[in-house]
Amino acid sequence: MTSDQNPQGSHLVILMPSGRRGQVSHGQSLLDSARQMGVEIESICGGRLTCGKCKVHVEEGNFQKHGIVSQAKHLSEPSDEERLLLKRMHSSADRLSCSAYVLGDLLVSVPEESLAQKQIVRKSATERVIEVAPAVRQVYVEVDEARLGEHRGDWGRLQSALAEQWNLTDLSIDLQALRRLQMALREGKWAVTVILWQEKQVFDIQPGYQEGVYGLAVDIGSTTVAAYLCDLRTGELLATESMMNPQVSYGEDLMSRISYTMSNADGLEKLNSAIINALNRLAGRAARQAGIHTRQIHEAVMVGNTTMIHILLNINPVELGNAPFALANRDGMDLKARDLGLRLHPGANVHVLPSEAGHVGADNVGVLIAEEPYRQDEVVLITDIGTNAEIVLGNRNWMYSASSPTGPAFEGGQISSGMRAAPGAVERVRIDATTKQARFRVIGEESWSDEWRIGPDQPVEAQPRQLASGICGSGIIEAVAEMYLTGVITPDGRINPENTNDNIQWDGKKAAYILADAGQTTTGKPILITQDDVRNIQLAKAALYAGAKLLMKRAGVKSVDRILLAGAFGSYIDPKYAMILGLIPDCDLKKVYAVGNAAGDGARIALLNRKKRAEAQEISHWVQYIETAIDPDFQAEFVGAMHLPHSSDPFPHLQGILVDAPLPMQAVKGRKRRYTRTKEH
Amino acid sequence: MTSDQNPQGSHLVILMPSGRRGQVSHGQSLLDSARQMGVEIESICGGRLTCGKCKVHVEEGNFQKHGIVSQAKHLSEPSDEERLLLKRMHSSADRLSCSAYVLGDLLVSVPEESLAQKQIVRKSATERVIEVAPAVRQVYVEVDEARLGEHRGDWGRLQSALAEQWNLTDLSIDLQALRRLQMALREGKWAVTVILWQEKQVFDIQPGYQEGVYGLAVDIGSTTVAAYLCDLRTGELLATESMMNPQVSYGEDLMSRISYTMSNADGLEKLNSAIINALNRLAGRAARQAGIHTRQIHEAVMVGNTTMIHILLNINPVELGNAPFALANRDGMDLKARDLGLRLHPGANVHVLPSEAGHVGADNVGVLIAEEPYRQDEVVLITDIGTNAEIVLGNRNWMYSASSPTGPAFEGGQISSGMRAAPGAVERVRIDATTKQARFRVIGEESWSDEWRIGPDQPVEAQPRQLASGICGSGIIEAVAEMYLTGVITPDGRINPENTNDNIQWDGKKAAYILADAGQTTTGKPILITQDDVRNIQLAKAALYAGAKLLMKRAGVKSVDRILLAGAFGSYIDPKYAMILGLIPDCDLKKVYAVGNAAGDGARIALLNRKKRAEAQEISHWVQYIETAIDPDFQAEFVGAMHLPHSSDPFPHLQGILVDAPLPMQAVKGRKRRYTRTKEH
Repeated sequence: MTSDQNPQGSHLVILMPSGRRGQVSHGQSLLDSARQMGVEIESICGGRLTCGKCKVHVEEGNFQKHGIVSQAKHLSEPSDEERLLLKRMHSSADRLSCSAYVLGDLLVSVPEESLAQKQIVRKSATERVIEVAPAVRQVYVEVDEARLGEHRGDWGRLQSALAEQWNLTDLSIDLQALRRLQMALREGKWAVTVILWQEKQVFDIQPGYQEGVYGLAVDIGSTTVAAYLCDLRTGELLATESMMNPQVSYGEDLMSRISYTMSNADGLEKLNSAIINALNRLAGRAARQAGIHTRQIHEAVMVGNTTMIHILLNINPVELGNAPFALANRDGMDLKARDLGLRLHPGANVHVLPSEAGHVGADNVGVLIAEEPYRQDEVVLITDIGTNAEIVLGNRNWMYSASSPTGPAFEGGQISSGMRAAPGAVERVRIDATTKQARFRVIGEESWSDEWRIGPDQPVEAQPRQLASGICGSGIIEAVAEMYLTGVITPDGRINPENTNDNIQWDGKKAAYILADAGQTTTGKPILITQDDVRNIQLAKAALYAGAKLLMKRAGVKSVDRILLAGAFGSYIDPKYAMILGLIPDCDLKKVYAVGNAAGDGARIALLNRKKRAEAQEISHWVQYIETAIDPDFQAEFVGAMHLPHSSDPFPHLQGILVDAPLPMQAVKGRKRRYTRTKEH
Repeated sequence: MTSDQNPQGSHLVILMPSGRRGQVSHGQSLLDSARQMGVEIESICGGRLTCGKCKVHVEEGNFQKHGIVSQAKHLSEPSDEERLLLKRMHSSADRLSCSAYVLGDLLVSVPEESLAQKQIVRKSATERVIEVAPAVRQVYVEVDEARLGEHRGDWGRLQSALAEQWNLTDLSIDLQALRRLQMALREGKWAVTVILWQEKQVFDIQPGYQEGVYGLAVDIGSTTVAAYLCDLRTGELLATESMMNPQVSYGEDLMSRISYTMSNADGLEKLNSAIINALNRLAGRAARQAGIHTRQIHEAVMVGNTTMIHILLNINPVELGNAPFALANRDGMDLKARDLGLRLHPGANVHVLPSEAGHVGADNVGVLIAEEPYRQDEVVLITDIGTNAEIVLGNRNWMYSASSPTGPAFEGGQISSGMRAAPGAVERVRIDATTKQARFRVIGEESWSDEWRIGPDQPVEAQPRQLASGICGSGIIEAVAEMYLTGVITPDGRINPENTNDNIQWDGKKAAYILADAGQTTTGKPILITQDDVRNIQLAKAALYAGAKLLMKRAGVKSVDRILLAGAFGSYIDPKYAMILGLIPDCDLKKVYAVGNAAGDGARIALLNRKKRAEAQEISHWVQYIETAIDPDFQAEFVGAMHLPHSSDPFPHLQGILVDAPLPMQAVKGRKRRYTRTKEH
């Protein structure tokens, strides 16, 4: 690191969880440094050490990974006033960013609550028709009064009443409910409302007549955790809450979290606590929003990828990090909330949907029961691109699934100016065919960049509210596709060496396309699409495409009738660009749908309808999982799919759509790039 | 209190849990005071504040009950050294008795570990033939190795192996076991030992071949908690441990503990914690004695009276304190040890035997399955006298049970010099028919009192090792019976006014028989049997007898074939004296047996044989409980039974046994004592 050799110059600062990085001057405050890098940290007092809003964590542990060995003397010592304020706030944060001055390279984690502009979470519940038949049921029952000479006991008498009045037999009672039973019966004058799970277990008893049973559906993504609070009587969605998965602090991707549990004795415990705390916070927020108490959340259904589910259950995910990727348990599970440390109703059941294989988890099963491709005549392809991509292909007769090692490029990872879909992220890109100049739109600003009037001499209303600070997944897809359409890059992905215009920086062999100039960005530096960025997108899209083609080959179909793009990324990419780039196989674009967070919808459906849990269990065994890593066809498909859109596959549906015909295809000469499965998938 | 008016004189000190009380000089140390009262507190350093063995709790809360309002200034302030030593020991005790000086009336609790001579616990396991068929089973199984392209998951593969190799299907797995599964399989090279409960749930997995499953049977008495650690493969009893029920600090009898939960917001919590901690200590001791870890205790079976079981389960026992004495649950229960806070194997099941009615609990069901009267042709009467008395009468065709409000007199309660069966307690009594002089034997000293040679001029070997300090249950029975046989009291229980010898103290109308003179006691004061003591024994024996007679009347039998005396008290009383006094109905004395802690044996039997649990459940419903409190026949029987041995019932079996014929019967004149059910029973 050059900055280490020049301590009085500038230093590298990396901000988590956004991953933004930048060089900042020696002695600058962390608050100002973050601002310079486009991250607004909240500060009410403006550095007067009274508000304490700008707190940050200075990370340890992760340093080595980023090439930084130690934090020692990389930050100024805290003053007594700062120490006092942190202590008074009982904050677990290390520092107040207004009073911490950069003296060396640093990795800093900005907690969600310290961000001035909260992250936009794009997962949202879609409306679907769901039959309401939950596992939790409330019944009102009048019980014989206790009297001398009769010895059934209160629970015995309640059982008799439930059998007579509701035909409910063979019931058990949760210990917590038994503890409340006697008081409830007497308070309710021998009439109580009983809450039953699966018509098997009584787990709550309330005096008199009561109404209201609630449930929480949760999708635990590697990056985002989304929770849906539902009224279990009406099926109504009462509140949707989401937040960043706090495990991000321990590793951006699954593999680094698995590594964290392997290299730290308390690693699993920390990751587990992080998600349990997050779920408790989400449940609390959702309950507040709906005006109920978390104690009234009587059931929960959870989905997530296999690593997330292992960690949720406090099961070490180490086996998922290496072949043969053995799951601890593939099947659906029912657990007590209290055994997981979840602060819902203490007797609440937590149902975890089943998984399909080591890398296709409950989240994909959620997608399946939400979209029901196994009830369709059409051949349906579903891709769910999160930090990992799951691909399902099938209809009512057969169904295949695979996990494809796309890597994090589609979420802005491994992209030089990549960032999450947060304010300031470029999400739409158009390149002029003649000038090769880009115009773009960023999240948080409605006008396109070519309408921006920047500078003190420009009218305020014409100035953008938000400058560009990086590029997110949908932005990079459009950028690369447009670069290809306009000939900035060749079909094999090279930045065209015949380009001579100003939009290309040539630095030796390291070419880069200038997407945004210095004046258009929050950092004052241009946003570039480098040759490596293009390569990473090619790798990711090739993996995704090869996975889909592999399943088509297994199924013996030449084309698909319908494509569903699930997940946040799938909701925001333009299907046209996805096809231009060759992320998905050829299909009538009218039959390509974004279905939002289908995994979360699946959880919600299973919450509201218990029969769907049995269906999920059945489907998870029925679907045939194809292991891409050991399939020679996958390698072959992968090589061809590196090309834009593909070296040999025709894309007839693209022809009528593109205004400008794509550049003539060129064979990939003298290059056989063999895909090696990384540990990340 | 006179001592409060005379602070420089002497003060009343009450020692718990023994209940010993005495006047001690102002300024005397608690250690010396206790010694003076016959309670040896352990002390190794002899007051040099180094050993810390003599620690005691100075009780609050209970003061009002004993007429003492406040502890303020009733004890000297602790020195810095004392504070330091207590702190260093991390002791929860208040004071070191060697350094705390009495300045006023005090209630002091001496923890068991501070006693130099541990209390003798008379409950002990009897040897019985039990078929070993426990609910917990260990199986060794070889599991298919995980391999790529196979997706059952580790638990799925283990299930397949258990089905193939052991024909075990439809299994569930405890979350804690699932967490250990993957590591165990790999550590054991795909061979594991699985521990199953009821052939339904896998709750532990150990790598490779392992042997050893253990279980704990527990009898939670109001006064004593006894635990039996068994090898579940052989049925062998590995360790027996018992201790005083620490709930004694919150109330000697059940009713005062129920009151404690009603008058203190955290009352139930305290009582529950006390018993859970005690059980954890007992389990720890038993495991240590057997050379195993508490984690290896894979199941537990618990019995106890209904109040003890409610408190164990953290269910408020308030309903048991008042008619109609409704149980929360009558049936047997299976709970996870971890849900109760028990530190056994975290997945261990705790089975609680069923109860019969509000006052006949799992302990009596334990007695039933141990003694199996329901398999006999003979009519069997079983009495279990603890702090309460349960009575069962029946044979293979019918069975009745009742709870009889004997009160605590049989355990030394409500007796002026009463104490527990501990060293120094008079347990055997003989009175000379001519001189009316008593000789007696105390626990901890083998020779009878008439062989004692006391004084500095007597040889050391002839001096008793233990002087008398009170009288326990079996002692008071013999004393009253002998007083009746020798005419010290009349058959209606009055101390014979025609008595003129020195053994009777006449203090106005308050007559008392001198059992031990001042020189024979630890306190230096005589031990008296007062008129009230005799009355209390009459009340207790009448209640017990009336209960037995009531059941005989219901069953339509005139006599019983066999009598079993269960419980500690039953093991130590002489059946002859029990019959002389009229505790039990007439029966061939050769057919009266002491069966020891049959409740504990029942727990052990149910631990070792799961079929006995089903039998317990069935029997608990089959036995007909008779509510003595509302039965007019009980009142009638009770009045007649006040007489010694009974005003009208013949006792033919006594005639041949007694050397001296009893005095002629006298009718109870002008006295109709109607028994009022107290809250204690």
